[in-house]
Amino acid sequence: MDKILRIDMEKRTARLEAVPARYRTMGGRWLTSSLIADEVPPTCHPLGPLNKVVIAPGIVTGTAAPTSSRLSVGGKSPLTGTIKEANAGTPFAAKLARLGIKAIVVEGQPAEADRFWIVKLTKDGASFLPAERWTGKDLHDVFPPLAREVGGGKDVATMAIGIAGEARMSAAGVCFGDLEGRPSRYAGRGGLGAVLGSKGLKGIVVDDAGAPGVEIADKEVFEGGRRKVAAALTSHAITKPKGALNTYGTAVLVNIINETGGLPTRNFREGRFEGATKVAGEAIFAGNKERTGKDVYNHACSPGCIIQCSNTWHKKDGTEHVSCVEYESDWAFGANCGIDDLDTIAELIRLCNGLGLDTIETGGALGVAMEGGACRFGDGKRAIEILTEIGKKTALGRVLGNGAATTGRVFGVVRVPGVKGQNMPAYEPRAIKGIGVTYATSTMGADHTAGYTICPEVLGVSGKVDPLDPDKAKLAQGFQQATAFLDATGHCLFIAFAVLDIAEGLAGMVEECNGVLGTAWTTDDIARLGAEILKIERAFNKAAGFSEVDDRLPEFMKREPLPPHNGVWDVPDKALDRVYRA
Amino acid sequence: MDKILRIDMEKRTARLEAVPARYRTMGGRWLTSSLIADEVPPTCHPLGPLNKVVIAPGIVTGTAAPTSSRLSVGGKSPLTGTIKEANAGTPFAAKLARLGIKAIVVEGQPAEADRFWIVKLTKDGASFLPAERWTGKDLHDVFPPLAREVGGGKDVATMAIGIAGEARMSAAGVCFGDLEGRPSRYAGRGGLGAVLGSKGLKGIVVDDAGAPGVEIADKEVFEGGRRKVAAALTSHAITKPKGALNTYGTAVLVNIINETGGLPTRNFREGRFEGATKVAGEAIFAGNKERTGKDVYNHACSPGCIIQCSNTWHKKDGTEHVSCVEYESDWAFGANCGIDDLDTIAELIRLCNGLGLDTIETGGALGVAMEGGACRFGDGKRAIEILTEIGKKTALGRVLGNGAATTGRVFGVVRVPGVKGQNMPAYEPRAIKGIGVTYATSTMGADHTAGYTICPEVLGVSGKVDPLDPDKAKLAQGFQQATAFLDATGHCLFIAFAVLDIAEGLAGMVEECNGVLGTAWTTDDIARLGAEILKIERAFNKAAGFSEVDDRLPEFMKREPLPPHNGVWDVPDKALDRVYRA
Repeated sequence: MDKILRIDMEKRTARLEAVPARYRTMGGRWLTSSLIADEVPPTCHPLGPLNKVVIAPGIVTGTAAPTSSRLSVGGKSPLTGTIKEANAGTPFAAKLARLGIKAIVVEGQPAEADRFWIVKLTKDGASFLPAERWTGKDLHDVFPPLAREVGGGKDVATMAIGIAGEARMSAAGVCFGDLEGRPSRYAGRGGLGAVLGSKGLKGIVVDDAGAPGVEIADKEVFEGGRRKVAAALTSHAITKPKGALNTYGTAVLVNIINETGGLPTRNFREGRFEGATKVAGEAIFAGNKERTGKDVYNHACSPGCIIQCSNTWHKKDGTEHVSCVEYESDWAFGANCGIDDLDTIAELIRLCNGLGLDTIETGGALGVAMEGGACRFGDGKRAIEILTEIGKKTALGRVLGNGAATTGRVFGVVRVPGVKGQNMPAYEPRAIKGIGVTYATSTMGADHTAGYTICPEVLGVSGKVDPLDPDKAKLAQGFQQATAFLDATGHCLFIAFAVLDIAEGLAGMVEECNGVLGTAWTTDDIARLGAEILKIERAFNKAAGFSEVDDRLPEFMKREPLPPHNGVWDVPDKALDRVYRA
Repeated sequence: MDKILRIDMEKRTARLEAVPARYRTMGGRWLTSSLIADEVPPTCHPLGPLNKVVIAPGIVTGTAAPTSSRLSVGGKSPLTGTIKEANAGTPFAAKLARLGIKAIVVEGQPAEADRFWIVKLTKDGASFLPAERWTGKDLHDVFPPLAREVGGGKDVATMAIGIAGEARMSAAGVCFGDLEGRPSRYAGRGGLGAVLGSKGLKGIVVDDAGAPGVEIADKEVFEGGRRKVAAALTSHAITKPKGALNTYGTAVLVNIINETGGLPTRNFREGRFEGATKVAGEAIFAGNKERTGKDVYNHACSPGCIIQCSNTWHKKDGTEHVSCVEYESDWAFGANCGIDDLDTIAELIRLCNGLGLDTIETGGALGVAMEGGACRFGDGKRAIEILTEIGKKTALGRVLGNGAATTGRVFGVVRVPGVKGQNMPAYEPRAIKGIGVTYATSTMGADHTAGYTICPEVLGVSGKVDPLDPDKAKLAQGFQQATAFLDATGHCLFIAFAVLDIAEGLAGMVEECNGVLGTAWTTDDIARLGAEILKIERAFNKAAGFSEVDDRLPEFMKREPLPPHNGVWDVPDKALDRVYRA
């Protein structure tokens, strides 16, 4: 029987609870958002004792469903004040699911601040270990040894927060190890690492030895679905082995988005970066080949992934510098900061991975700090110095570690490209309107993963629409609903590339869920269930004080034309309000 | 005929406009809030081109009405995001009124940031002078020489922003000279200095030579009213010459509020400060006597004031250190930071006056920074160093210059005693409930001057009620309405001590207005007109995205008992919501 593991950090207790019936078919984001909505007062202080963090693997996580070892981390965000779900692909997810843990609920707060604990989790329950030995350190010095020491040499998976989370900085993510134990997989957005920091939870080590595994209600239905998903993934040009993602990683998007004029450059002053080709996925592949003497294809972040899009960047001597140079991270420190050197970008990403920071928010904060005069655009040396200050917890470091909106406030900068306090990712809404509708209306603040309309607007996946057409309310709504459901399944969002184009694959995804849960959903239920998840999140945000007034892009985007197309943000407010009214 | 002076900082033009009929009977806060509500989009960025700053003298300002040389400064606040009115007593107010200028509207924004201008205003109109010579300086080095140079030796009055406003820090106030030209009179709260900074307006010098003076519709009615107000002020124990305020200044409250257990101490951790008597108004009077060899009674901040409550603090050698050590400033750096040394407090206030900062917000930020570990409580030397950093615009300085909420965010502090982003002043809501209702529900964020229920709750003015009784919705509502009207008249709020106890005085205040305007208001109209002003402000805030969810005190006050009485904040949310529904 599945359980909820409730960790009380005030009393330092952990207990397993039966899963209430209403949560039975939920997983991932659906479950984190439901638990947060049910148990956390929407107006509470995100870093106070009433907030909680929920960690939940998806519905099919831990099974043989391909590319499904993801988990959701939920809570009230200290960055945005909204409900928040951030997810990551990691072996931790599968191990949790195989232990029969449907969700971990972390609650309470020790009376004494700045003391930290590690929770060790096995089939026999949870225990607490003092974390002094692991705090204040670069996560690259924590991840392999922590797993070794606490795991006692067994095959364990690790979650931890870094210095940024310990110091309750609101750009702090929650870090999970990848298959090699690197601190590279982040439930990055929204500062949930700071919430764990406020609760004194430094990390969790999961050992699933002897775990019962995931119960499957109907193996035949499940197996049929699994095969369809696998077939879609192995045949689609974006997701197949040695396809676009496996070869160039997500950074394959750099050249593509730059071409549209929608690659935000120098803190969203321009839409095209003159240095794009030097930092694009193709340049990463070529650079790695030059430095290692061979074709370096990408690897999986978690077990059972067909796409395998996690890349690496290598130093001149051929040794690994960092994993991963994702499109978003590459952009955040590259085009967004006017930096066109992959070694510098890799170092900035490595600093974030080591400190426990969301690269999108931190790169956004760096861009805003550059706007505010703390550093010249393109000055990689100074950028590295500034990020290093976050680890030293200097005032400047703390400012950036609290994200772009706080950085803008401190430096008196008006051009802060965020929504609900969360910085925009690597797509310019003035050049690609649908993604702007998602940014504005998402329950999460500016978040491309909440409704990735880039598929039809740029990539020609699931059809093709004009990115400059402002009539995107319906499109963004559909993508947000489908994504909410997908985030519940435990599948990686990237399966969307395949299953949106290949109808059999989409049906397969639903059949996998039916196989696990014994439900009888059809593909028609995707939008319905997704809408239900969004409704829960939206209601939380409303009770927290958010309204349609907050579903807006920043003023400067309506007034400043964006080169090279020189368009402004012209989606009417009424259209934005239709996304949730419709 | 009265005019509105419209200063466009984008085009650098100034023009006089007729006053639209709907504004004719308005003045002070009534007029600033009406103009802001009519002309500023509520959702605009406070530091962007769409915000405006309105400066308006009160209805009777510039006449012989006693203690009435006040003006209101209004705009959308970069600190709170709400509409904002901050007011000050200064000769500038009377001169503006005598020139027939009912309001100055400062709008637009130069294309080029960080260039500043001085506006010189005479009966012949306005002219622009480059301000390079005056920027980046301590305001103590600006105020007398700027008046001298621009005023050409004439009797002029000056307004300016300091380095904090130039750098668009959201704790930046708008500074006005007192009768001696000291930079001591502040429309401090809400960061309107930053809005002027964002518009490149460094200051205004007003020369009222040859001014027509204020038109009075019915001199007899006016004169009758004026006499009644003067009689009340000269007879009430708090406001009369050599009365409490004239002798001890507003800091006379230190011992009184400390006695109630409502003097917020060490960032609102306690309600009684062991060092209170060392920094109280009585100690200031005694210290000045010891250092100057004589009784130092207080002086007037502006012409025609009977109360004359502006104090000074003197150095050991008998020379003046700073003016004024107001109750709020004394508390903000004293009890709130655990500092019990008047020389240190005076220096911290002087730094704020010199930098152009609101002492309440800056002291609040310092208290929160102490909570966050940037400085020990009580460490005056380090406190002075930190405040000095604001002038150097270091990261730490900028953080504090942006107020307590930003400081809390940066340092990951949960105990931030603010409402709507504005730090609480020197009255603890857990010990004095009515003022907490005002903090929670005021249109301005936490602001004691918005509805000073301390009168009946502590001082026995206008009756006596139990400070610990949570049933204060009606009381706070009445005080907020009366205050909104009083802020429109141009009278100092301190006349309330007298006119609330002496009915003739209250009637006189209304008669003065009738005399100037030709209206036929009675004292029954005070609440009605006040409610109208609040309605305008409340509607602006609602359109800006504020709701009842924002009318709340911080979570920690509901959970942490406050020594010595060990009460928590227990006014029900429903009672708070009644303040504006009733």
